[in-house]
Amino acid sequence: MELVPGNTLITATPQEGRELAIAMARKSVGAIQTDADTRKKLRPDYANNADSLTHAAQVVAIEFQTIAAANDYWRDQA
Amino acid sequence: MELVPGNTLITATPQEGRELAIAMARKSVGAIQTDADTRKKLRPDYANNADSLTHAAQVVAIEFQTIAAANDYWRDQA
Amino acid sequence: MELVPGNTLITATPQEGRELAIAMARKSVGAIQTDADTRKKLRPDYANNADSLTHAAQVVAIEFQTIAAANDYWRDQA
Amino acid sequence: MELVPGNTLITATPQEGRELAIAMARKSVGAIQTDADTRKKLRPDYANNADSLTHAAQVVAIEFQTIAAANDYWRDQA
Amino acid sequence: MELVPGNTLITATPQEGRELAIAMARKSVGAIQTDADTRKKLRPDYANNADSLTHAAQVVAIEFQTIAAANDYWRDQA
Amino acid sequence: MELVPGNTLITATPQEGRELAIAMARKSVGAIQTDADTRKKLRPDYANNADSLTHAAQVVAIEFQTIAAANDYWRDQA
Repeated sequence: MELVPGNTLITATPQEGRELAIAMARKSVGAIQTDADTRKKLRPDYANNADSLTHAAQVVAIEFQTIAAANDYWRDQA
Repeated sequence: MELVPGNTLITATPQEGRELAIAMARKSVGAIQTDADTRKKLRPDYANNADSLTHAAQVVAIEFQTIAAANDYWRDQA
Repeated sequence: MELVPGNTLITATPQEGRELAIAMARKSVGAIQTDADTRKKLRPDYANNADSLTHAAQVVAIEFQTIAAANDYWRDQA
Repeated sequence: MELVPGNTLITATPQEGRELAIAMARKSVGAIQTDADTRKKLRPDYANNADSLTHAAQVVAIEFQTIAAANDYWRDQA
Repeated sequence: MELVPGNTLITATPQEGRELAIAMARKSVGAIQTDADTRKKLRPDYANNADSLTHAAQVVAIEFQTIAAANDYWRDQA
Repeated sequence: MELVPGNTLITATPQEGRELAIAMARKSVGAIQTDADTRKKLRPDYANNADSLTHAAQVVAIEFQTIAAANDYWRDQA
């Protein structure tokens, strides 16, 4: 199972880094609950719950810390 | 969908960095729950709940860690 | 709305850095729930709840990580 | 009990680093709840709960921060 | 109110750093809930709850990250 | 009370670093709830609860971040 799309943490822009953070968080969940039907069934549980969305946003923020550091915060591009 | 306003982590001041942290956290939630009406309906659930607000503040703090590091903590400006 | 008092992460001492961490966490909450009356009404919910206080302390700890790094841990002063 | 498979944080790729993060998180749980039958019984509790999966993904994200730093973010390989 | 005992993050040993982490976490709570009687009343709520203790241990771990970095991980002493 | 076994964060291997992370998290709990009987009584509460185990694994992951950095990720040994 692919856990890191492209198998690299290097991205061209912060926007792409952010997309990678979201994708990596989703793939983690997919690695723990491998049944796609179950994941689909669970989706409304958190997509319609404010606290669950905050928690999901937190995981994205943590993944993004790693990706941003890997890309030296895209400083050269600024 | 735009996930990083301006597509850069570099800001002029800590204040602007903080605003970016809040914006990025909000856009994460928007990327997970794409329906604006649902997000609006969920807003009172956390805006009127002390623990939810603490959790939201935590996500902002994590995003800000990344942004502050990207800007070398705005030390030159101090 | 002012999110970083003084618009700098640099403080003279760890004590002042800690005070800034608490202030920044509070201002985050103020930026999310902008109604002061609502915030006042919610205060007893967490100030009288052990788990809520632990969570609030966690947010302060995360903010302080950033501020301490910005000040190079106040090593020169030690 | 083996807590770090291979007893090293160094991996060839981000994908392998991610697999290590998942393995290390699982081994932590195994070190705390050493009874394999109990762990198996508890599995549906979190694998079928959206919030539990988000939390598990968060632990993976934290472990991965460490592993990614250890590997200098696999920058040489990019 | 004193938030950082000694107003420094520098300690002689990891043990003292750990004691400082616990003290700083406690002082955070004291800054948020300033009434000592209320804090005393709340103590059994978390001291007798496994999840609350885990959460308190998490805050200590986060504070300790900052203190350990400030002391360059006490490497010279090793 | 001993909070850091050996009073050092330096370990020979990642495996030993991981064991130290678990030990330090446990000693934190012991410092907060000093009564051993109470701790023993609380143990089944989290050891038989999937979410509690995930949370405990998270604390270990955070402690390990510090220990791994202290040991420069055991890179020399790799």
